[in-house]
Amino acid sequence: MPEKRYLMTPGPTPVPPQVLAAIAEPMIHHRASDFRSHYGSCLERLKQVCRTQSDVLLFTSSGTGAWESAVVNLCAPGQRVVAVTAGSFGDRWVKLAQAFGADVVPLRYAWGETPDPADLRAKLAEIGGAPVAFVVQSETSTGVVSDIQGFAQVAQEAGTTLVVDAVSSLGAVPLEMDAWGVDVVISGSQKALMTPPGLGLAAVSQRAFAQARGVEQPRFYWDWEKTRAAQAKVDAPFTPAVSLVIGMNVALGLILDEGLETVYERHVRLGRACRAGIKALGLELFSPDEDRSAVVTAVRSPGGLDSGELVKVLRDRYGVTIAGGQGDLKGKIFRVGHIGWFDLFDIITALTAIEIALVDLGADVVRGAAVGAAVAAFQAA
Amino acid sequence: MPEKRYLMTPGPTPVPPQVLAAIAEPMIHHRASDFRSHYGSCLERLKQVCRTQSDVLLFTSSGTGAWESAVVNLCAPGQRVVAVTAGSFGDRWVKLAQAFGADVVPLRYAWGETPDPADLRAKLAEIGGAPVAFVVQSETSTGVVSDIQGFAQVAQEAGTTLVVDAVSSLGAVPLEMDAWGVDVVISGSQKALMTPPGLGLAAVSQRAFAQARGVEQPRFYWDWEKTRAAQAKVDAPFTPAVSLVIGMNVALGLILDEGLETVYERHVRLGRACRAGIKALGLELFSPDEDRSAVVTAVRSPGGLDSGELVKVLRDRYGVTIAGGQGDLKGKIFRVGHIGWFDLFDIITALTAIEIALVDLGADVVRGAAVGAAVAAFQAA
Repeated sequence: MPEKRYLMTPGPTPVPPQVLAAIAEPMIHHRASDFRSHYGSCLERLKQVCRTQSDVLLFTSSGTGAWESAVVNLCAPGQRVVAVTAGSFGDRWVKLAQAFGADVVPLRYAWGETPDPADLRAKLAEIGGAPVAFVVQSETSTGVVSDIQGFAQVAQEAGTTLVVDAVSSLGAVPLEMDAWGVDVVISGSQKALMTPPGLGLAAVSQRAFAQARGVEQPRFYWDWEKTRAAQAKVDAPFTPAVSLVIGMNVALGLILDEGLETVYERHVRLGRACRAGIKALGLELFSPDEDRSAVVTAVRSPGGLDSGELVKVLRDRYGVTIAGGQGDLKGKIFRVGHIGWFDLFDIITALTAIEIALVDLGADVVRGAAVGAAVAAFQAA
Repeated sequence: MPEKRYLMTPGPTPVPPQVLAAIAEPMIHHRASDFRSHYGSCLERLKQVCRTQSDVLLFTSSGTGAWESAVVNLCAPGQRVVAVTAGSFGDRWVKLAQAFGADVVPLRYAWGETPDPADLRAKLAEIGGAPVAFVVQSETSTGVVSDIQGFAQVAQEAGTTLVVDAVSSLGAVPLEMDAWGVDVVISGSQKALMTPPGLGLAAVSQRAFAQARGVEQPRFYWDWEKTRAAQAKVDAPFTPAVSLVIGMNVALGLILDEGLETVYERHVRLGRACRAGIKALGLELFSPDEDRSAVVTAVRSPGGLDSGELVKVLRDRYGVTIAGGQGDLKGKIFRVGHIGWFDLFDIITALTAIEIALVDLGADVVRGAAVGAAVAAFQAA
């Protein structure tokens, strides 16, 4: 039998067949009326997913491209910026802002720690404020999900524009852009939005648009104003990734049909199920054992086992792809993604495969308990 | 019967079913070994299509993104640059380089004129040289294809780094990057490479890499060195558009299986057929009546007819999508693309549809002659 494959990394994530089918439709022109109906619908649905009345700007890029758009639209050379970092992606944003000459003040935590809004308040007070702050909602490298509502409140008090990396969290855990007063939300197509990688997005508040107009930093491809003006006419400044836009429109339809609240609740339950199963295996969680961390479950590799070995055995022997650790965590943790198109049975598959592979590798695990624990946690009120 | 649709714009272009099928395969992880085999093959095939031993850097972006990469890697603020422009895309590159602070000296032609390498020689002499020059190979807005071999010779004599926009020409008309001494070739997935839009590419000579190292211009997403270093490990610095890379690898395989010389010859014949048919209709060509202009045939709208009307009737009544004019040519010309996955019968369809629609619109055309003329021109030795 041809091997069945299971993609359980924190991104790219599995794409539903309806989305794949839409992507495989014959090509159409990006200025034809039929594409414009997909595109207009996609832009409107993105607003609903971001919970905003503002424009959601779509870029043909990785998520990092959408991040670069925030930097070049909001950060003039020499401008002070606070970047909250507790992992690989937080570190990337520090480097990105530095590359464009920003005076970056990192608010740094050990990888795996959960950033605290009170620390941002203290940091802003200490340095006399900053016009912009960057924070990661879901730190994919550690599985930690931060309290964005808390960060938004601190930023508003300080008059600081808050830019949130929601690449691996948008559409999986709550993010109320307008209600919480978040200025900019950055995300990408390839995580909870259940679409292949290739689209980056920036939801931009009126306040952030106004701020961007005063920022002198060269920009062309990432220019927010240019993109907004084109999108106002249901157009794009440059040929968009037609197939991916059509696919994402279908995926967003699936999410909104399920209902955002239901989607969030499903992720909470998937997270609980995965953590319960991991604990029942006798393993130690690296990511926090809390409902908010519902997109990636990070686990300490047991008994000195190189987690890279586990990743390899799972992939090569059982067709299951999970992720190892990044940076200093390489070899020390493994990560199971359950972002987007996942249900309970995917978690059961992941846990069973991990159990089998760890036994193969001679690790000391509790056998036969993970599935039951996961099902019970998923079903608990 | 559901309407059959015919995409005959100069991009995006039709995508072969094998490519669409590959794009619709279930998602895989971008660092898994199965993706790496697609990716490595795609990068290698791109070198063959660019006729270079150098690296071809792949960006998740529109073609304009790949252009921006050339500007931010080669142009420091205030640096002199010559930009050859004779149409919409030439003008875009002028604006792009200006946006990043380059001191752009335009070598400007009327839209529809064919740029002459001798004029670049004269301009470089007049201004005392320039480290970088930009030129468009196929000006999609007018159908003109420039003599890149001639421009490359002039640039080499002057010690100027030549950057060529081959977005709508790479894989359709000859471009011998190494043999002609072209420093940088920019292109995108959505034209002759028969893949949906979403991938930009920059083929970069060793000389251009060396030059980029000395250029102080902030860059992160578009950084050539970062991309080259990742690609050397068959990796990408940021999550690539997995599906599009897999699709483009298939498309490049189709091109190389047909053979680049055969592909070029097919485009020459398609261009001849299209022009012969247009002339047999009694219409006047806007693009040059020469073999080199083999990717887009631009035609003057007859008898004061708004070409936008023709485009609309073709699309709404007959399911055939062609393009109108851009800028000052809006309403005055129409353009038929025959880039990539096109054969004689596509040209016959386009000509027949144009004939029918022009008759609908009351235009004065010669009826019943276009198809025979096109077939004869296609078959002529």
